[in-house]
Amino acid sequence: MANPSPSKLAYVPFVSVENMMKLVHHIGIETMLKGIADYIEDDFRRWDLFDKTPRVASHSEEGVIELMPTSDGDVYGFKYVNGHPKNTKEGLQTVTAFGLLAKVDTGYPVLFSEMTVLTALRTAATSAMVAKHLAPKGAHTMAMIGNGAQSEFQALAMRVICGIETLRMYDVDRAATEKAVRNLDGFGFTLEPCSTPEAAIEGAQIITTCTADKQYATILTDNMVGAGVHINAIGGDCPGKTELHHDILARSDVFVEYPPQTRVEGEIQQMPEDFPVTEMWQVINGTAPGRTNERQITLFDGVGFAIEDFSALRYVRDQLKGTGLYQELDMIADPDDPRDLFGMVLRAKP
Amino acid sequence: MANPSPSKLAYVPFVSVENMMKLVHHIGIETMLKGIADYIEDDFRRWDLFDKTPRVASHSEEGVIELMPTSDGDVYGFKYVNGHPKNTKEGLQTVTAFGLLAKVDTGYPVLFSEMTVLTALRTAATSAMVAKHLAPKGAHTMAMIGNGAQSEFQALAMRVICGIETLRMYDVDRAATEKAVRNLDGFGFTLEPCSTPEAAIEGAQIITTCTADKQYATILTDNMVGAGVHINAIGGDCPGKTELHHDILARSDVFVEYPPQTRVEGEIQQMPEDFPVTEMWQVINGTAPGRTNERQITLFDGVGFAIEDFSALRYVRDQLKGTGLYQELDMIADPDDPRDLFGMVLRAKP
Repeated sequence: MANPSPSKLAYVPFVSVENMMKLVHHIGIETMLKGIADYIEDDFRRWDLFDKTPRVASHSEEGVIELMPTSDGDVYGFKYVNGHPKNTKEGLQTVTAFGLLAKVDTGYPVLFSEMTVLTALRTAATSAMVAKHLAPKGAHTMAMIGNGAQSEFQALAMRVICGIETLRMYDVDRAATEKAVRNLDGFGFTLEPCSTPEAAIEGAQIITTCTADKQYATILTDNMVGAGVHINAIGGDCPGKTELHHDILARSDVFVEYPPQTRVEGEIQQMPEDFPVTEMWQVINGTAPGRTNERQITLFDGVGFAIEDFSALRYVRDQLKGTGLYQELDMIADPDDPRDLFGMVLRAKP
Repeated sequence: MANPSPSKLAYVPFVSVENMMKLVHHIGIETMLKGIADYIEDDFRRWDLFDKTPRVASHSEEGVIELMPTSDGDVYGFKYVNGHPKNTKEGLQTVTAFGLLAKVDTGYPVLFSEMTVLTALRTAATSAMVAKHLAPKGAHTMAMIGNGAQSEFQALAMRVICGIETLRMYDVDRAATEKAVRNLDGFGFTLEPCSTPEAAIEGAQIITTCTADKQYATILTDNMVGAGVHINAIGGDCPGKTELHHDILARSDVFVEYPPQTRVEGEIQQMPEDFPVTEMWQVINGTAPGRTNERQITLFDGVGFAIEDFSALRYVRDQLKGTGLYQELDMIADPDDPRDLFGMVLRAKP
């Protein structure tokens, strides 16, 4: 009689939140942000290879639950992610996530991972990788409008990848700014808390907007934004949730991840359907221009795309070897005879 | 300084393959099939409430990986499932699956579970629940064409829910039939292995076709099928994979789960786009006729729909309480201050 215990094919490495945090410290958070950004850049360069689809969203009054699948033909990945702005009032995360990689040729999972921490890392890595291509040369100061859960990750990635030294920070809630100042102490920034958004953007070459209300908001109005800046707009990322006045969009050159998704979810949901945008992967592989002059306003309308999660999961998979920072999860039924699933169940009888 | 360990909000109950098999024996496989069928029937009855979408499929030469989400407005569920017919040659499962339930109002997962075993149970429960509504009264004999991983589950559900006593079994591979006979010994069936499909359907009121080749196959030809039977066609479930000759479809009244999905994946992919079908939920809630006469051929073109997985996960969630048959999985980052994800990571530094 066959052994009812799962064979090793049945086990999938699982990276828990605790192990993901250990992995961050094992690698070093700055090294990890840089590493993930490099994986994302590599995957943007081979963009054509990927199976792309807008995320599959289930909207409710309170928020959204999304599945974000993609595949490069060899590996398949997807992320589950929610967005519930009102969660913070109940002591819960606005965004939680987990994800998976599987082999395309067998469909068997090869990695299952928490992605709440990893999404913060990949979102920041994406923003900084994009800013590396679009921000004005010699950028050293960033305005950070919205000092919530994503902000420190954004700041650190912009420092490691784009050389940002000064952070001008604003949030409607002073306590959020104080928290971010506390967390970023010791990372080598000059930290400048500001009492208005107008003050925050003074002297900044990069403006990051990262706020969480699910509504049409106007974090930046047109007269606040001068020439020659790069705007990293990452808070507006679902239908009905935007951060910028549409006049800013009209004056900017807008860069996006995947237009079919961004036109529904991004800042450009405010604009006509044929509003011109540049796909970021084309800038990276040299087939479309990025920044072309010093006075231009470049605007990254970042909503987060499945390929970035795929890159981040690939990075984790590659770094995991030899660390022991995972558990083996008995997720996949694997009878000795694959046609004998029923027999496996029968033989498991206590 | 806050404790970096996850709070209880961070834990998601996980049902491993081993625990699912223990749950099956704890409940009893027949009771569980009946219980899942009841949950599916209840959810079909409130069909209008559900957020429905065809599954999101990623096709490759070797197979398919799919995500199947749905929501009843209160609970969200999805399943990951692959279909790789060539896997068995490598000692792997054709179909493996796992799934999740989450609260719509927070996006937080409440159950994560293996679904390879559970999918076999819910597929069988669906077939039998449908046959209860459509099969001729007094049906006692079922032809089971294809004796692979799903077959014993189908047989048992048809026995518990529809009163099937005699099984006439055929598979191109004799060893598959022998395995199924071995597994079903002791469940009270009269088991009749047959050497041809023609022999198998003799005297059967229900004909189940459940084969796994990814190709247009003709398991049943038109002249094999007489009047007054119910055909339970569950093997044809993706584009390019069918089991029945189209002349049988033309002579039958065809019942489906969700037409937009079945027209692409089911037997009716062979038929014109306006080929008439009846949605099974309408039969169950009494708004469409099921079987109307004794000579009618009813045909359930089952491809598997997200709501059935949702029902099965709901059933498992409700049965799990007090059994201890799950592990707590640290899947969700849950800092004390939800805006302080970065601080949580910092404080986890060893």
